Amino acid sequence: MQYSLTLLAAGLVAQTGLTWAAPQAKNFIYIVPDGYGQASQTMARDYVSLQKTGSNASAPIIQELAGDRLVLGTVRTHASDNLVTDSAASGTAFSCGHKTYNDAISVTPDGQPVGSILEAAKLDGFKTALVVTSTINHATPAVYSAHVANRDSYEAIAAQQIGYSHPFGPVVDILLGGGRCYFKPQSDPTSCRSDDLDLFSFAQKKGYHVMQDRAAFDAYLGDYTTNASLPYIGLFNDDQMMYEIDRSKAPEKEPSLLEMSKAALGTLDQATRASKKGYFIMIEASRIDHAGHANDAAAHVHDTVMYNEVLGFVQEWINAHPDTMLMSAADHECGGLTTNAFDPAPLVNVQHSFEYLKTVWEAYNGTDARGYFTSTVLPAAGLSDVTDAQIDKLLGASSPWAEMKKMIATKAGVNWSTGGHTATDVTLHGYAAGKKWREFKGDMAGNHDNTELPRYIEKVLKLDMDATTAKLRAVNGSWVAGPDAARKRRDVHSH
Amino acid sequence: MQYSLTLLAAGLVAQTGLTWAAPQAKNFIYIVPDGYGQASQTMARDYVSLQKTGSNASAPIIQELAGDRLVLGTVRTHASDNLVTDSAASGTAFSCGHKTYNDAISVTPDGQPVGSILEAAKLDGFKTALVVTSTINHATPAVYSAHVANRDSYEAIAAQQIGYSHPFGPVVDILLGGGRCYFKPQSDPTSCRSDDLDLFSFAQKKGYHVMQDRAAFDAYLGDYTTNASLPYIGLFNDDQMMYEIDRSKAPEKEPSLLEMSKAALGTLDQATRASKKGYFIMIEASRIDHAGHANDAAAHVHDTVMYNEVLGFVQEWINAHPDTMLMSAADHECGGLTTNAFDPAPLVNVQHSFEYLKTVWEAYNGTDARGYFTSTVLPAAGLSDVTDAQIDKLLGASSPWAEMKKMIATKAGVNWSTGGHTATDVTLHGYAAGKKWREFKGDMAGNHDNTELPRYIEKVLKLDMDATTAKLRAVNGSWVAGPDAARKRRDVHSH
Repeated sequence: MQYSLTLLAAGLVAQTGLTWAAPQAKNFIYIVPDGYGQASQTMARDYVSLQKTGSNASAPIIQELAGDRLVLGTVRTHASDNLVTDSAASGTAFSCGHKTYNDAISVTPDGQPVGSILEAAKLDGFKTALVVTSTINHATPAVYSAHVANRDSYEAIAAQQIGYSHPFGPVVDILLGGGRCYFKPQSDPTSCRSDDLDLFSFAQKKGYHVMQDRAAFDAYLGDYTTNASLPYIGLFNDDQMMYEIDRSKAPEKEPSLLEMSKAALGTLDQATRASKKGYFIMIEASRIDHAGHANDAAAHVHDTVMYNEVLGFVQEWINAHPDTMLMSAADHECGGLTTNAFDPAPLVNVQHSFEYLKTVWEAYNGTDARGYFTSTVLPAAGLSDVTDAQIDKLLGASSPWAEMKKMIATKAGVNWSTGGHTATDVTLHGYAAGKKWREFKGDMAGNHDNTELPRYIEKVLKLDMDATTAKLRAVNGSWVAGPDAARKRRDVHSH
Repeated sequence: MQYSLTLLAAGLVAQTGLTWAAPQAKNFIYIVPDGYGQASQTMARDYVSLQKTGSNASAPIIQELAGDRLVLGTVRTHASDNLVTDSAASGTAFSCGHKTYNDAISVTPDGQPVGSILEAAKLDGFKTALVVTSTINHATPAVYSAHVANRDSYEAIAAQQIGYSHPFGPVVDILLGGGRCYFKPQSDPTSCRSDDLDLFSFAQKKGYHVMQDRAAFDAYLGDYTTNASLPYIGLFNDDQMMYEIDRSKAPEKEPSLLEMSKAALGTLDQATRASKKGYFIMIEASRIDHAGHANDAAAHVHDTVMYNEVLGFVQEWINAHPDTMLMSAADHECGGLTTNAFDPAPLVNVQHSFEYLKTVWEAYNGTDARGYFTSTVLPAAGLSDVTDAQIDKLLGASSPWAEMKKMIATKAGVNWSTGGHTATDVTLHGYAAGKKWREFKGDMAGNHDNTELPRYIEKVLKLDMDATTAKLRAVNGSWVAGPDAARKRRDVHSH
């Protein structure tokens, strides 16, 4: 709050908002490519362009990606307490319009809850959806549907998201992603809860259709234009969903982000067709960020390409449903990726993420570890051309993975400068159909603080986030999970 | 040409151009922040914001820079023969609308000249200007005013720029920047020509007012709204002009980019006020790039802040002269800059560029080198807090400068991953006054290939670059300097 007042005093928020023509729309789609920086798009575009360029790398032919058609500008991302934000602070900014500290899930620095654009939509009669490839209680989906002092309070977040401990009850009509283990009681051996809450059973009692694997997804949502009724929850992995580079090799295991997005939009459209109120959906390409943290170039490219495929589908969707608008921006850059002497060709040979290869390698219990590493692991890592000396060196290392990632990065002429986030602005994308697109560009082409973005959606959908905040704060505050509710931090979950 | 045809076949250029409403304007200002990437703006903004944030670094208050108000989207930069471009190929793209190979100055891969937007403007009766902080015959100003196979043909470029060997004669009414030595005959001890051409004398014969130092600038242009007549040339350094971080400590030595821009716009406005035809001016913040190559964070910040000051002045200028439009985009990113754990505060203590400090240090001929290094060089480098052991280590190194740059980068939490350019897209800025600004955003918000940019200017000013190309090619081609005209490459000149 304090920060917003400062901005208002400086005339920045007021000046910006006053110039918005803000075309009206019935539905809004917001897409978060978590951890996606400017270099991510260049890398993915040049990778896809290889299909046109072919073998003549010295005469590149560039193929535009869907995201390239939808650029609106850039977004500033800092947290209230750090120039480098995490997903929680940045997510609170673009879901609720308030600056806060790193780790905060839709609470201001004083610990008080602030209403999200999704909650405001739900209160106003809209249908709502969260579709992600991370755990569903990860920071980005959490900021739309929960209020806790620390993002690591995964159990409390899950309980709020499904409406068990949220003062408004269930506010999300569609939840699709990973994080299944947080919805099972501790008696279940695959649970990661420390209590007896059975959130899937609770969801069913509240009328949710529950899906826990791809078969259930196909049965209920496989045709995308299904009459499947709301609400529903589908969690397809106990942990994060698979990287796209791995999932695409085993599509029977999990639906892709594109498939989940098609299913969610299809059912949202069906459910609101006869209503004056539409829907708000947040789709997150969550694991671009994880690949950035892991400095895994090929996994980063494949999840970025999938993000662009979703953007392309959504652009077509909006052309067919012109009462719908899109905005999309990352929460922050991740990995400090630069494209120094870039050649995407070596990335074509990479078949799996290093996360996947590590699991495969650690599960190997045969007698010829070196042979397995050489014949199976290295080729799948895009490194079939290494010498025996290099193999010995890799196998002798405490962990060969960091070294292998560097080898691939060097081949592709890219550099990762950090395992964390950076302060650099990210790209803003958007779309609207017909004449609205020029109006939208007139409004939003530019550089924005991330807190401005939900204020624009609020105006387009005629919602009131401040009233939502007031309603949340009118409830006795004990439901907001404090910092003591945070579980021991798991690295993979805390980006 | 071949590449453009490929793009046309793919429908990209045609599709984009067809959607342009292209408001008409009398004048166009194009600004090139050479080597400026997305991280450069974030770094400069957070640096300037320190004035508001003060000592409480854990509660940053962000001050928008002029460039933040003017973002339109992003620009793709690749060369015809490499995903990573140099300034010559990218400059040819955004000055002439044609992809070409790295090193090419406004010739296509087959060595044939292509007309620039500046040349097209001149042929149509506009006034023209090039205002830079590099040598005036450096790649970016060169692509507007010369045609040579290799950017290193500095002598040939200078001779074309002043109209001595350009088939159209003098096409640039205002030339301001560095590179004085290329305009003096070899008999002059400060010349860097290998022939007897005296281009300053030639310029005077052609009616140019010639300025060779700040006093001459002040006398002729010091009031910015002068009635100084065109044409004129002012070159204020034999080599590149000073980095802003150094120049600002000795403003009597050289005018700033802002001062030169004010002077050029003032005289262009005077000269065209009574005419139906306006002006085209290219302003380059040239040395953002050099600081990137040198991995010099503070020099990079100061030149980026100066770029933003020029943008701010130009925005005000356009508000006062609404028949004028602005576009601005870098040719490429440089240095692979990332802002990993960014804290701009340590950069405040840096008083000079490392280029400057190296010169000072090498000129020291006193008896207490260690004392001088400790009391003068280190504090000016922002490193007054180093230990005696570190000083010994620095003095013992073959060159202490690389190590000192790393120390500053570490303090500020930034990383440079290369001494060269990267492939990553750059930011597009622009501005127009009143209702034209929304039209402009409607046209140009988005991601563009760099070849599209001059095509937009062409449409706004109603010019014909293809006709200009035809006129250039109708001239017997021996005037186009071939690769053999390139001098031995000087590192500082070849970015």
